Amino acid sequence: MSDGFFESHRSRLEDALNAISTREYWSAFPEVPSGRIYGETAKTDGIESFKARLGAPWPIEQPGTAAMVGQECSPYGMDLGVTYPSPDLDQLCAASAAAMRDWKRADVQTRTGVCLEILDRLNRRSFEMANAVMHTTGQGFMMAFQAGGPHAQDRGLEAVAYAYAEMMRTPASAIWTKQVSKTDSISLAKDYRIVPRGVAVTVGCSTFPTWNSYPGIFASLATGNSVVVKPHPGAVLPLAITVEVCREVIAEAGFDPNLVLLACDTTDAPITAGLVTHPEVRIVDYTGGNEFGDWVEANARQAVVFTEKAGVNAMILDGIADMRAVSGNLAFSLCLYSGQMCTTPQNIYIPEAGIETSDGTMSFDDVAGAIIKGVDWLLSEPARASEILGAVQNPATIDRVEAARSAGGTVLRDGGPVDNEHFPEARTCSPLIIQVDEGDDRLYQQECFGPIIYIVRTRSTARSIELAADAAHRLGALTCGLYSLNDDVIDSTVDAMSDAGVALSCNLTGQIYVNQSAAFSDFHVSGANPAGNATLCDGAFVASRFRTVASRIPVPASVEATT
Amino acid sequence: MSDGFFESHRSRLEDALNAISTREYWSAFPEVPSGRIYGETAKTDGIESFKARLGAPWPIEQPGTAAMVGQECSPYGMDLGVTYPSPDLDQLCAASAAAMRDWKRADVQTRTGVCLEILDRLNRRSFEMANAVMHTTGQGFMMAFQAGGPHAQDRGLEAVAYAYAEMMRTPASAIWTKQVSKTDSISLAKDYRIVPRGVAVTVGCSTFPTWNSYPGIFASLATGNSVVVKPHPGAVLPLAITVEVCREVIAEAGFDPNLVLLACDTTDAPITAGLVTHPEVRIVDYTGGNEFGDWVEANARQAVVFTEKAGVNAMILDGIADMRAVSGNLAFSLCLYSGQMCTTPQNIYIPEAGIETSDGTMSFDDVAGAIIKGVDWLLSEPARASEILGAVQNPATIDRVEAARSAGGTVLRDGGPVDNEHFPEARTCSPLIIQVDEGDDRLYQQECFGPIIYIVRTRSTARSIELAADAAHRLGALTCGLYSLNDDVIDSTVDAMSDAGVALSCNLTGQIYVNQSAAFSDFHVSGANPAGNATLCDGAFVASRFRTVASRIPVPASVEATT
Repeated sequence: MSDGFFESHRSRLEDALNAISTREYWSAFPEVPSGRIYGETAKTDGIESFKARLGAPWPIEQPGTAAMVGQECSPYGMDLGVTYPSPDLDQLCAASAAAMRDWKRADVQTRTGVCLEILDRLNRRSFEMANAVMHTTGQGFMMAFQAGGPHAQDRGLEAVAYAYAEMMRTPASAIWTKQVSKTDSISLAKDYRIVPRGVAVTVGCSTFPTWNSYPGIFASLATGNSVVVKPHPGAVLPLAITVEVCREVIAEAGFDPNLVLLACDTTDAPITAGLVTHPEVRIVDYTGGNEFGDWVEANARQAVVFTEKAGVNAMILDGIADMRAVSGNLAFSLCLYSGQMCTTPQNIYIPEAGIETSDGTMSFDDVAGAIIKGVDWLLSEPARASEILGAVQNPATIDRVEAARSAGGTVLRDGGPVDNEHFPEARTCSPLIIQVDEGDDRLYQQECFGPIIYIVRTRSTARSIELAADAAHRLGALTCGLYSLNDDVIDSTVDAMSDAGVALSCNLTGQIYVNQSAAFSDFHVSGANPAGNATLCDGAFVASRFRTVASRIPVPASVEATT
Repeated sequence: MSDGFFESHRSRLEDALNAISTREYWSAFPEVPSGRIYGETAKTDGIESFKARLGAPWPIEQPGTAAMVGQECSPYGMDLGVTYPSPDLDQLCAASAAAMRDWKRADVQTRTGVCLEILDRLNRRSFEMANAVMHTTGQGFMMAFQAGGPHAQDRGLEAVAYAYAEMMRTPASAIWTKQVSKTDSISLAKDYRIVPRGVAVTVGCSTFPTWNSYPGIFASLATGNSVVVKPHPGAVLPLAITVEVCREVIAEAGFDPNLVLLACDTTDAPITAGLVTHPEVRIVDYTGGNEFGDWVEANARQAVVFTEKAGVNAMILDGIADMRAVSGNLAFSLCLYSGQMCTTPQNIYIPEAGIETSDGTMSFDDVAGAIIKGVDWLLSEPARASEILGAVQNPATIDRVEAARSAGGTVLRDGGPVDNEHFPEARTCSPLIIQVDEGDDRLYQQECFGPIIYIVRTRSTARSIELAADAAHRLGALTCGLYSLNDDVIDSTVDAMSDAGVALSCNLTGQIYVNQSAAFSDFHVSGANPAGNATLCDGAFVASRFRTVASRIPVPASVEATT
């Protein structure tokens, strides 16, 4: 059965490995939510499956369940009413550890095959997942489909491919023959066994529960570990569906379904600190805020910890050929999902003397005005505005916008509710854009998660680069955008941002945005600044999830004679 | 110049990469100290070069040198009288960090070529190195030549090969083209830059200063980091020579020689704690005792830390076809370098009912007696005994033998001084062998570094396996030996020891020993038990020493048209 899984997905794995090594465009899972691709009834089936989940306890039977908990409320306005298992940590971890017994002895192909099959089945449920992601994170439907479905699956596949490649670097066995004298040699048969690190915990976030969690889940599972999935209390459903699919495929392949367990809690009685420091837990993948992420890094000392946190992303404007094309592109980046992406630009640096354009210098005020105009235009059509902005996941984000409005600087564009035709109760907020001077660093040199943007007036582009790099070094950053017509400026920004561990996007226009990170080509988070200690996905993300342990024994004379 | 280095050593690198992937026998550097290989005058030249170093300050000029220190005393009886630079840590770390400026921008081939050239030049100085290693560690000449020279160089090459492969997994650039509609596509030119983590510190040990340090030094250097080498105060000279060669080649290649710096101290005024926790230090490779190693893991939180510590190694006797062949092999393992290898067996488990042999059961007492006889025979010829035992590096090891003699159990063979014809002042000690019962775990279930061996009488082989695995899980272990004629016993030992992260050697006879670990084939330390958190050498050992940071920019239309 499980060998069949590997064989049936082998070409997809090979394509993924090829894409990783060329970094050219490739995707395994179609991003267009089309009936022609996913089946004519896929859309309505997905909604039905989603609705069937609501207002009921989650059906998974898990060991060590102490209570059923649930408090998900859609940012679009309805309570989901689903309850999920909340664990006794000792029992949960013991069941998770016990589940590894056969899994860790399975060969690389078998484990890889199971992971590939899980991803394939998740793909078939992309419409159901889209609804679950939309109504937990607040993403617009299209984004929820893409980021929550195929793009997350691609990121999961990328991790499986890296894990597979890493495990295949050492053969399962070898014959080692050394000449020890003119006439004598010694031959040893060596066996190399993959030994998983132990129970892995993946801590999900509330905004991208699948996209950010799949790499850790699949990297750990493929390398022989068991996985406990700990969703954010506000975004459980997408990961509950994921766990369900994992358990189904694992059981079909003849392994213990407890290899993947769901561990839920509430904001009032959080279990994450106890879980990530549990002695059985040997791997932690964390996505979320910096404060708790720093705590996990400092305290989960019994585990290897991979974090994806946040930072202060910059956009540096130095020169722009076609302001109309740029302001449209930039406006989309600023508005998408109401700035709730860890890749959204926060600080837009513009020199006080203005910027170079093909029509001569454009003044600081005109550049700032063009950005505001771009945002206003993008949000001028209500249906488009609702789809791009989505809804705001956490009420605290609205509070943060309120606080920022009155904290200082000049409000160039006020942010606030945007009517959503389909969901009148949706919690919405368009971007608040504030102009500040570079000296106002107490305002803008801090992470302001959500639709809060600072336009920072700087002495020069050189100073803009300095401010962006300094923030990245001190506070972390995931992305930086640059618009410049000057190769020297581009080169020095590449130098500064590479050293600061920030992915740089230059002169983007059209349908490609600074906040997008494509599996198999773009690295997400560098691990080289405080925005996280790991990368999705590189060799370091998978290599320390397992160890290779060898045994060696002299080759019997009969075997030796034939080699 | 530096491209030339890469080209001239390219085939050696390719052979190393091939060996790593097949795990078959291969070595780049000849282990036989022969004039035909190393040059007819190599031996005398080596001694001359070594002698010329003695009684003088080390000639390297380094920034931030606060004092010259030195206290090396050969375990064979003479003071070396060399003094070395001891640093002001802030100045040293600043110089180290500054040295990365051009190095990190060099391409992978250039950095790899420099590392390969360094190893090649170190190889040519293997006789000088052998004398330096012998008169700091106390190893016999042959071992000092092999382990301190070619075997260490092989381990360094292995790390360079792993680092090269890891860096080459991502291309330096790619063109990424995505179809965004039926008619439109977007093309981005992406550049991927290797970003080193920062200043790397390698903390050397007193017994294998080069073998255990080269992997960390070369893995860090190849991946763009600068390296501060911190030798044990008792074994500086081998690493001082290494640093000299590194600086010479680096300067020839046009880079800042401060990429590799030597940082020395004394046992009275140690600097290691301050160095490994210095804010500029981002990588630490540590080899040494568990107590300080655990401290480094817990406290060098600003760095990624790789440790190789120690543990309690087991030898499990269950069945033996030819006791004579086994007792000879085992005696050599126990005597080699007076048990001062982290891979030397400490606890020999024998069931109380005796073991199976081809002539029927052999009683516990007869097996223990055969081991003693094997050791006595091996040490009966004075010249051979001196060469195999070498000298004892640290006087504390002699104290430990004294303490063990009177701590409990039955002394089956007393350990003590062995006359050394060439070095009458040598600090020597043959193995002390003590018989205990499995219940005497307070005696034998602790690391007893040096020539101290426990023969443990157990209820059964199953119990022996349990005791060995338990010690590995709790206290760490690097190696386990097993002799058995029963496939089920072999299988269950493989299972238990793999899970405990211990390299297992079964039924060794002849010229291959449980304490030997061959580069390109055997992993040294698993990272899966308290004997260390890292492996020499796997992907995890190199992958997190650097990050890959990308920049992307639309492909100009002219370029796009041609792709």
